[in-house]
Amino acid sequence: MLPSAKVIHVDTRGAVILSEESPETRDSRGIYLPNHIEPVSHIAVDVGGSLAKVVYFTRSPEPPASPPVIASGSRSPSTSNLCISRSPSPSNEPAATIAFPGGTKRNNGALTPLVLGDAHAHAPVGPALSGLAQDALLRRTVQHFPGGSLTFERFETDAIDECVRFIEQLIERSAAVNGVSLAAMRKGVKVVATGGGAHKFYELFRETLCVEVRREDEMECLIEGLKFITLIPDEVYYFSDELIQSVTHAGAAAAAWKVDGQAAPIVNGLERPSPDPPKFAVTFESNPTPQLPCLLVNIGSGVSLIKVDEDGTFERVSGTSLGGGTLWGLLSLLTPATTFDEMLKFSEQGDNATVDMLVGDIYGQDYSKLGLKSTMIASSFGKVFKKGGEKGKFSPEDISRSLLYAVSNNIGQIAYMNAEKYNLERIYFGGCFIRGHAATITTLSYAIRFWSKGTKRALFLRHEGFLGAVGAWLKNIGPEEDGAAGSESNNDGL
Amino acid sequence: MLPSAKVIHVDTRGAVILSEESPETRDSRGIYLPNHIEPVSHIAVDVGGSLAKVVYFTRSPEPPASPPVIASGSRSPSTSNLCISRSPSPSNEPAATIAFPGGTKRNNGALTPLVLGDAHAHAPVGPALSGLAQDALLRRTVQHFPGGSLTFERFETDAIDECVRFIEQLIERSAAVNGVSLAAMRKGVKVVATGGGAHKFYELFRETLCVEVRREDEMECLIEGLKFITLIPDEVYYFSDELIQSVTHAGAAAAAWKVDGQAAPIVNGLERPSPDPPKFAVTFESNPTPQLPCLLVNIGSGVSLIKVDEDGTFERVSGTSLGGGTLWGLLSLLTPATTFDEMLKFSEQGDNATVDMLVGDIYGQDYSKLGLKSTMIASSFGKVFKKGGEKGKFSPEDISRSLLYAVSNNIGQIAYMNAEKYNLERIYFGGCFIRGHAATITTLSYAIRFWSKGTKRALFLRHEGFLGAVGAWLKNIGPEEDGAAGSESNNDGL
Repeated sequence: MLPSAKVIHVDTRGAVILSEESPETRDSRGIYLPNHIEPVSHIAVDVGGSLAKVVYFTRSPEPPASPPVIASGSRSPSTSNLCISRSPSPSNEPAATIAFPGGTKRNNGALTPLVLGDAHAHAPVGPALSGLAQDALLRRTVQHFPGGSLTFERFETDAIDECVRFIEQLIERSAAVNGVSLAAMRKGVKVVATGGGAHKFYELFRETLCVEVRREDEMECLIEGLKFITLIPDEVYYFSDELIQSVTHAGAAAAAWKVDGQAAPIVNGLERPSPDPPKFAVTFESNPTPQLPCLLVNIGSGVSLIKVDEDGTFERVSGTSLGGGTLWGLLSLLTPATTFDEMLKFSEQGDNATVDMLVGDIYGQDYSKLGLKSTMIASSFGKVFKKGGEKGKFSPEDISRSLLYAVSNNIGQIAYMNAEKYNLERIYFGGCFIRGHAATITTLSYAIRFWSKGTKRALFLRHEGFLGAVGAWLKNIGPEEDGAAGSESNNDGL
Repeated sequence: MLPSAKVIHVDTRGAVILSEESPETRDSRGIYLPNHIEPVSHIAVDVGGSLAKVVYFTRSPEPPASPPVIASGSRSPSTSNLCISRSPSPSNEPAATIAFPGGTKRNNGALTPLVLGDAHAHAPVGPALSGLAQDALLRRTVQHFPGGSLTFERFETDAIDECVRFIEQLIERSAAVNGVSLAAMRKGVKVVATGGGAHKFYELFRETLCVEVRREDEMECLIEGLKFITLIPDEVYYFSDELIQSVTHAGAAAAAWKVDGQAAPIVNGLERPSPDPPKFAVTFESNPTPQLPCLLVNIGSGVSLIKVDEDGTFERVSGTSLGGGTLWGLLSLLTPATTFDEMLKFSEQGDNATVDMLVGDIYGQDYSKLGLKSTMIASSFGKVFKKGGEKGKFSPEDISRSLLYAVSNNIGQIAYMNAEKYNLERIYFGGCFIRGHAATITTLSYAIRFWSKGTKRALFLRHEGFLGAVGAWLKNIGPEEDGAAGSESNNDGL
């Protein structure tokens, strides 16, 4: 018989999201959990088609930035300028524009298993430390304290060896910090793997790391991760209603829409998706409330749509192959960009109207009878093909913006239709496609607003790409716990 | 007061679709209407974002191919090898593979208005003739006979002048054939324009052609065109049920799916859309039946989805900017192809698995729990982006196939969701995107089959791109008819 799955019970009271070092890691800031006591030493890894995501937990008695000595103790020395930002500019700053101090490499804490062989069998051990020098000092003062940080890392799946090496070093460092042998540490650590790569790379993880590797179902992990992450204050964000009101009803704000002098036909009070969606303000959810039922739209290389019922049961109800992989793949062929962030940067500077055929290009005006504005995109890339095969020149910026809109709008439309079909009001967007990018979020948000006539809301997550990994981290399965610790126990550490 | 719209009543009994000269014009074969008496001299033009479609009617006492002397009389001399094909290989030949004899230029018949100024005011005049030499001979024998051909022409919107020139020459030739002055002919002829370009190019048509130009609503014309064209025998086609059965239930046929040795999970008896949909047999509808209610998915540069109720009332319920313009535009950037047909040819020879990330690429196997086959496309173009920005080389063939699948699957999915929402069983695909292309038709057909679990059917039309133009042709509005001829009359020619 298989051991029954057990879920870690994490105390999320007082959880805070840590500021991050650089825009490149904006979606992978640590989460400090001041009241969580249970040691969790396993490492979760979610290997998708393009990215591998790693989540692990390191103990520390206080958040890693205040006072600085603790910060540099619990994080690596190079991250001493971290600070806690309880609610970074709530409700008026898009996620993508949040500034991160410094540009330093992220820290790598150490794992602290409950059981580290014989030497540590009967007591939880000290905090996560990156420097051996501070080990003894801190261990004296912080036995059995609550608190610690969830840490998030991302790797490209094509370079899975880097991910494996990272975990290997984390285990080695943790052995040193805890003063135990590598063999003992390996016994106390487990890799919980999910995503497609959990199957494909199972042997690689197991043989290289010499630790137990558990595989968990991808969809289950996504939903567990969603349920957990939505309990973190300031994790969930969305576009505020207020600005939508002012944009659709106030003349001045309407100028932002490039309404070209004519009366813009408002369909049920909401404009159709257009090349230039209005810049709504962002609101962070500082008091998390129960979020089920909902639709989870997970946008990785491809897209999965998962209906989650009020009791947490779920079903993958739809999907589309037009996802992040499509955007990055096509843009890598069509532009000189070599990274996701370069592509997003291009898109910020582009004008899709040179590439897309707008309603006005076909009609010479609005198609008012149908409520189609002249600035609405009628055909993505519709201006590119030329009679006689003449190959036009289009800028990487314009191409990037057009394709970002095309993919985002399409996902928003399919998401809305499924939310409508299953009568779900909340639509969460997860996955590494979003990356806190303002244009993506605006487009998705707006598509949901438009198609639902304002009845449904697009919700976003700071740790959008880590749902599966967080869910895998929460899954704490092992024969060790059979019988002894019930699933309600706080003692199901390994 | 505006004159009320009048619709031509066309006698479609015995209608036959004429064989076409070349694959390039496979979607624009003439339709011979042996029992239609009413003269219709106006020229319909539907100007879309990429293509302008022209429809007009020329009289002839017999179908233009039997006997040959009539064929060369009623069509241009260069089309003498035309033949009638009542039901070209029904139920076992995909539309795209139908062979057309010869490769000659299509004919241009002449218009025969009911009223051609004073000289012809009181009698309908003779047949459509392309050669003045045959005029007198044939006119003697065919006064007031029934019968004539609907003729279809396509032009690129970018080269709208070619379209205008074509109509100009048609009017000039018709004047010569009918032995009247150009001024008289211009009075007897009218251009009925629809599509976005009806507004944009209104002045161009009016001033160049010196004829009355009427504009008609695009959606109304599409629906009128659909209602008419579905009455023509052998016009509507679809994939037969039989082969779906044999493919999903027989082991031998399943090999066509590239089932890789493993048991292929059948979800509700139907496979998911895959890179290689099975080659279903095509069935032509030789006994047209009432086709409403239905969903019309019109795929031009962009895509419109129109719900049509049983009584013919309609609403544009959805759309997507990912349409023909997206496919042609991206492929013109990504491949050396310079025409639509070159792009389709590339796609026929390609293997999308080099470009697309399949389920098997991520999982190393099927994701059986979700019924996702290893050969299913998880991410279109998902294999293209490489870490470090290394630009891979991908063949035009593989890229073309991948993008054709991506666009077609997406349209199929959105179409299905709307058909489901509005409880419509019949889904017609129209517009110039399809072009009778086997891979496109198979993919769309298959997406509908899969998503609807076999409850809904994708229906295709030989004259898929001409619905709007046919609808405009059927709209016969003019102050001349006010009062005199009721809308039920067969006498509302101009």
